[in-house]
Amino acid sequence: MEINPETVPHQDVYKLLIGTVVPRPIAWVSTLNRDGQRNLAPFSFFNVVCSQPPTLVFCPLIRVTDGNEKDTLRNIRETGEFVINVVTEANLGLANISSTEFPAEVDEFVAANATAVSSVVVKPPRVGESPVAFECKLNQIVTISDQPGGGSLVIGTIVHIYVSDEILRPSYKIDPDALRAVGRMAGAYYARITDNFQLERPTSQIKPKVDINS
Amino acid sequence: MEINPETVPHQDVYKLLIGTVVPRPIAWVSTLNRDGQRNLAPFSFFNVVCSQPPTLVFCPLIRVTDGNEKDTLRNIRETGEFVINVVTEANLGLANISSTEFPAEVDEFVAANATAVSSVVVKPPRVGESPVAFECKLNQIVTISDQPGGGSLVIGTIVHIYVSDEILRPSYKIDPDALRAVGRMAGAYYARITDNFQLERPTSQIKPKVDINS
Repeated sequence: MEINPETVPHQDVYKLLIGTVVPRPIAWVSTLNRDGQRNLAPFSFFNVVCSQPPTLVFCPLIRVTDGNEKDTLRNIRETGEFVINVVTEANLGLANISSTEFPAEVDEFVAANATAVSSVVVKPPRVGESPVAFECKLNQIVTISDQPGGGSLVIGTIVHIYVSDEILRPSYKIDPDALRAVGRMAGAYYARITDNFQLERPTSQIKPKVDINS
Repeated sequence: MEINPETVPHQDVYKLLIGTVVPRPIAWVSTLNRDGQRNLAPFSFFNVVCSQPPTLVFCPLIRVTDGNEKDTLRNIRETGEFVINVVTEANLGLANISSTEFPAEVDEFVAANATAVSSVVVKPPRVGESPVAFECKLNQIVTISDQPGGGSLVIGTIVHIYVSDEILRPSYKIDPDALRAVGRMAGAYYARITDNFQLERPTSQIKPKVDINS
């Protein structure tokens, strides 16, 4: 099927996108507003940007229920800080409760019974139930559209990392079977990452600039 | 373990990021340079941004072998167009061959024996072995760093979508068991998405702005 997206309602384009750009990692983002009120919400339009400086990006949509931007985005505009916690099989139930579109004054840490643990560098707390937390300072927000169906890219520089010793192996490798991350699929579907396999990348054919033997 | 990323080599921060931000969807990106030379390469720092306008983002790193930007990024700077093809169990072998860091003059469609199919709107071809292809025009490139370990965000507006009838169901839903997308993990690891489950999102507690009963 050939589809011109301009001829299809954006809700249907959304369904195509969340069904085909899979599996998605899940950022569980904790923030404070300018008065110190806590917020916690999951986002699956999320990924790494690069490692030097260590940078992450997630993309909050305009809220479908009322056409406003999400509390998370407004808080980051106000404070410039956030923590990205990783979602796993063990904490997905809490993350799911925190995805409820509560009024702004609700503290999702309380609503989801998630443990707020003080961060090292930034003011928003990390989630105690998450084995990985990236403390971030805002690099920039790129707004694509503030209309329904629109969204922004929130780009953050990682200033501190918490990693549970239970998932960390020598040389900063992570044990995926200990982490048990969850991937986001379309609709109400998620994926357990239990069916892994190895495929070696072909050897690079480009020579390094510097000959290490010389 | 508490980690200050400024005290750790960026290669180790990279290992932490690719081990914890999982599973990642894979964009298999086809481009042309200004002379029409084809390029094809996979990227797993990739996700949806929003659906109106339909927007995707992927993040090419600076190439570790020679410190240069990737051919894909240079081509998009030159032409403003690219196609993001979806990687599946069936075409991962070809995508992996195309990940070889060939010299710029090598056509990865030929090297990987992937079928170049004419796109509808943009000049770069889509991959015939991929059941989903998003034809994109460049919205903008956000450069975080052009140093080793650095990278950019390439933000594209989708101008045309190809979806195989074999994976499409009524109402623009995608059948994940027909798609069989592959997730990227750390190192040489990938994940098959075979262990899915449903978890309903709690009902929204925020009322729509417009009362549909009035």
